[in-house]
Amino acid sequence: MARHNPRIPVTIDLNADLGEGFGRWHLTEDARLLTIVTSANVACGFHAGDPLTMRRVCEEAVRHDVRIGAQVSYRDLAGFGRRAMDVPARELTAEIAYQIGALEVFARAAGGRVSYVKPHGALYNRAVHDREQARAIVDAVLLASPPGGPLPVLGLPGSQLLDVAREAGVEAVPEAFGDRAYTPGGTLVPRGEDGAVITDPEAVADRCLGMAVDGATLARDGTPVPVRARSLCLHGDTPDAVGIARLVRDRLQDAGVALRPFS
Amino acid sequence: MARHNPRIPVTIDLNADLGEGFGRWHLTEDARLLTIVTSANVACGFHAGDPLTMRRVCEEAVRHDVRIGAQVSYRDLAGFGRRAMDVPARELTAEIAYQIGALEVFARAAGGRVSYVKPHGALYNRAVHDREQARAIVDAVLLASPPGGPLPVLGLPGSQLLDVAREAGVEAVPEAFGDRAYTPGGTLVPRGEDGAVITDPEAVADRCLGMAVDGATLARDGTPVPVRARSLCLHGDTPDAVGIARLVRDRLQDAGVALRPFS
Amino acid sequence: MARHNPRIPVTIDLNADLGEGFGRWHLTEDARLLTIVTSANVACGFHAGDPLTMRRVCEEAVRHDVRIGAQVSYRDLAGFGRRAMDVPARELTAEIAYQIGALEVFARAAGGRVSYVKPHGALYNRAVHDREQARAIVDAVLLASPPGGPLPVLGLPGSQLLDVAREAGVEAVPEAFGDRAYTPGGTLVPRGEDGAVITDPEAVADRCLGMAVDGATLARDGTPVPVRARSLCLHGDTPDAVGIARLVRDRLQDAGVALRPFS
Amino acid sequence: MARHNPRIPVTIDLNADLGEGFGRWHLTEDARLLTIVTSANVACGFHAGDPLTMRRVCEEAVRHDVRIGAQVSYRDLAGFGRRAMDVPARELTAEIAYQIGALEVFARAAGGRVSYVKPHGALYNRAVHDREQARAIVDAVLLASPPGGPLPVLGLPGSQLLDVAREAGVEAVPEAFGDRAYTPGGTLVPRGEDGAVITDPEAVADRCLGMAVDGATLARDGTPVPVRARSLCLHGDTPDAVGIARLVRDRLQDAGVALRPFS
Repeated sequence: MARHNPRIPVTIDLNADLGEGFGRWHLTEDARLLTIVTSANVACGFHAGDPLTMRRVCEEAVRHDVRIGAQVSYRDLAGFGRRAMDVPARELTAEIAYQIGALEVFARAAGGRVSYVKPHGALYNRAVHDREQARAIVDAVLLASPPGGPLPVLGLPGSQLLDVAREAGVEAVPEAFGDRAYTPGGTLVPRGEDGAVITDPEAVADRCLGMAVDGATLARDGTPVPVRARSLCLHGDTPDAVGIARLVRDRLQDAGVALRPFS
Repeated sequence: MARHNPRIPVTIDLNADLGEGFGRWHLTEDARLLTIVTSANVACGFHAGDPLTMRRVCEEAVRHDVRIGAQVSYRDLAGFGRRAMDVPARELTAEIAYQIGALEVFARAAGGRVSYVKPHGALYNRAVHDREQARAIVDAVLLASPPGGPLPVLGLPGSQLLDVAREAGVEAVPEAFGDRAYTPGGTLVPRGEDGAVITDPEAVADRCLGMAVDGATLARDGTPVPVRARSLCLHGDTPDAVGIARLVRDRLQDAGVALRPFS
Repeated sequence: MARHNPRIPVTIDLNADLGEGFGRWHLTEDARLLTIVTSANVACGFHAGDPLTMRRVCEEAVRHDVRIGAQVSYRDLAGFGRRAMDVPARELTAEIAYQIGALEVFARAAGGRVSYVKPHGALYNRAVHDREQARAIVDAVLLASPPGGPLPVLGLPGSQLLDVAREAGVEAVPEAFGDRAYTPGGTLVPRGEDGAVITDPEAVADRCLGMAVDGATLARDGTPVPVRARSLCLHGDTPDAVGIARLVRDRLQDAGVALRPFS
Repeated sequence: MARHNPRIPVTIDLNADLGEGFGRWHLTEDARLLTIVTSANVACGFHAGDPLTMRRVCEEAVRHDVRIGAQVSYRDLAGFGRRAMDVPARELTAEIAYQIGALEVFARAAGGRVSYVKPHGALYNRAVHDREQARAIVDAVLLASPPGGPLPVLGLPGSQLLDVAREAGVEAVPEAFGDRAYTPGGTLVPRGEDGAVITDPEAVADRCLGMAVDGATLARDGTPVPVRARSLCLHGDTPDAVGIARLVRDRLQDAGVALRPFS
């Protein structure tokens, strides 16, 4: 695996889930993370995200020139959208489009717009393998996109979601995870397994740099695996989320990587 | 009270609440009422109105050239939006804007757009007297309106809502009720009182005609009272709703009144 | 298959889903069905069933000496509990126990008590095959049962739910469906297939009688299949629900079958 | 105002709102506060409190011999029960009884029982002045109480709630607030006003001690005012909640005050 040609500037996007409180409850450190990321996946009210929080996050995002993405979910506040649901395709399409539209109001009022769509939690995971639900998500994106053309979809490389999106003429943007171990086949090591999650901030930052610059990382067994990501996903709901995010950003910038939104 | 000059064509709008089911539950005869009214107040999910129903009502409305209005409400599915709530102004504004945005997706996907806003139930009643909540509604309308200019607001003549709207440069559209008794002062007889609701279809149709053509009706005590309405509100959730709506429409058309959306 | 010995009196229970409205929305003809059935599966607020409706149904049930069962569901008002959900077992157990407890208040206040538990919709179907969710349901029943001993569980013969219940020392009560076709193996013909649902009231009543008296019915291909049910499930949300229920009851009583609650 | 006779042992109850998270969101430090208070006001799912949290708090409360109270609320997750609602009395009674019943399952399964009822947030404040809603709460308590007799109600001295409770034969337990300023008339200084909330932990502890031992405190203007409370309310959702609660407890115990549940 050759190093990236140093004369071609490397760019990468940093995305994080934001606005994941609800009413009295707060979860993500929205204000601080918005000074770090380039794309904000804003919760739209179905797994988290009350309207006032959505408004504030959009205003803050525009202020920091951060792109606003609709982080759409199953309708499941009690389960934070982490419980897969067998939602009929037409219902799912309508429920997702509803969320995109609701967010668009706040994005536009803040002087921005919804720039992409990313499914949350169980819907994200389901859309990796379930072609029907992936199709329902893409249908929602097509339904809810502005006249100028369909919004891009952010998801897992190799997922049904990105496949279906591409087939439908929707830009499919792959992302990678600096804090997750990869198999030699390039898929994520399932969360339950040993070493699936990388918690050391330095290690996370190193892996992010490798992914951005080399388009690759080391699998759990040491094999190099290609990781073709246009965005790196940072987590916003862990105790040290802000610290890790800042370290990743600094490490990338010190190495000359330009942080640019993909949308 | 002079009859309307017969050489000037009279026009009026007919509005009704539609899409007021939720999931498995149905309430309003959407398909049939959409062949009668000129403006559909579409429930947006907070008191009623699941996303799939919103989508279908918008598609059907565009097919029949019926205008789509956002029927916004307190967040209260269990109470059908009929329980007044002390929602802080900033929260209320965000909750209403959210609903308008969600509906806009389906209106636009169907080839139309949200053309006006009408509060539902307890929010409608509260905004008659409560200037702060009226202001919060108007703020939401300003927040959620398209770049072309603010959406009109449909409400009760003499209400704080219409006053605040006007002051904010928002078109304030007064409506009247053919099935409600009026006081000599021109306000509605409260629902609890004797004869407050008129149930005879012929009487309702006659009163609607009088309101449209003469801009007046007879108060409960027989006094003529002016009723300056640009729209007549028909109810969609009573057993005979469709029959009455059709009778009103026929009576108006037979009298040469043109039925035209106000928006 | 021999006819039932006419000197031994045959008894059967009739159950139906009741209280399946929510706030402004009504679905099941509760008052009329409560004059027909012997067991009422009362919705507990998670797929349907607002607290005031729960109270009224319990009062009416006690008045007609109808047993009250907790019709527990996934938390899914928008999908009427018909969308299967991957709820972790501990969460599911707590959510079901919550529903049973809520209903118990109204049953007891009306002079009765919750006498059994029946899962609704997608949870019912999931518990046919999914041993973990079946176990979570039984755990909730054990958690929520009164000191006198665990409540019986009503479900599909051959289901994981009834197996797990039996293993846990919980009475497992099998039910049959007079309006559903059976395979020669004794399972239900899936809803999508031809002839899966029997709509002719006379045919439904005949099949119910056969199930009660002979403990058997004819499969779709004419083969007789045993149906060991202690309760027959009537549907409450179809247009003709009351008429069919009454016909079934009359047919059974005319044949000398005693209608008695199983609990 | 004479000091309390030192030979008569003084007892007081300490109550705090617990279990006020929902699903993924956490708010109150349940485990730590349960080592301090004698009565836990457990959220029942309408403003906060998912079923699994309710179960855990009940188990922990029983382990620490802390009494379990039903902290009932308007149905308002988005507003955390802090938005007053005009709920019709019959609906409100049913909604509150539902919550008490749901909690009872977890209390009983843990080896305890629901020992009292305390309204939360806007419902608490509304029931100070609104006799109809106060009556609806008491009706719910009567409806949901076990056969042994009605549960006590915990509330503000001088409130309609305690008056109505007493008239209905329900034990009315007054509470006081160590962190709130009082008027010379003995009512709370409204939250908006200067000095309404006392944040210094030592001051809070001192005031709690005075209330427990002397049955009195100093009003904002220095006038001594009687405070006849059988319980002191500690807040569980502030950053320093645990520290203050512990200080109050220590100060009371050092002064020989016995901490005992009122129920």
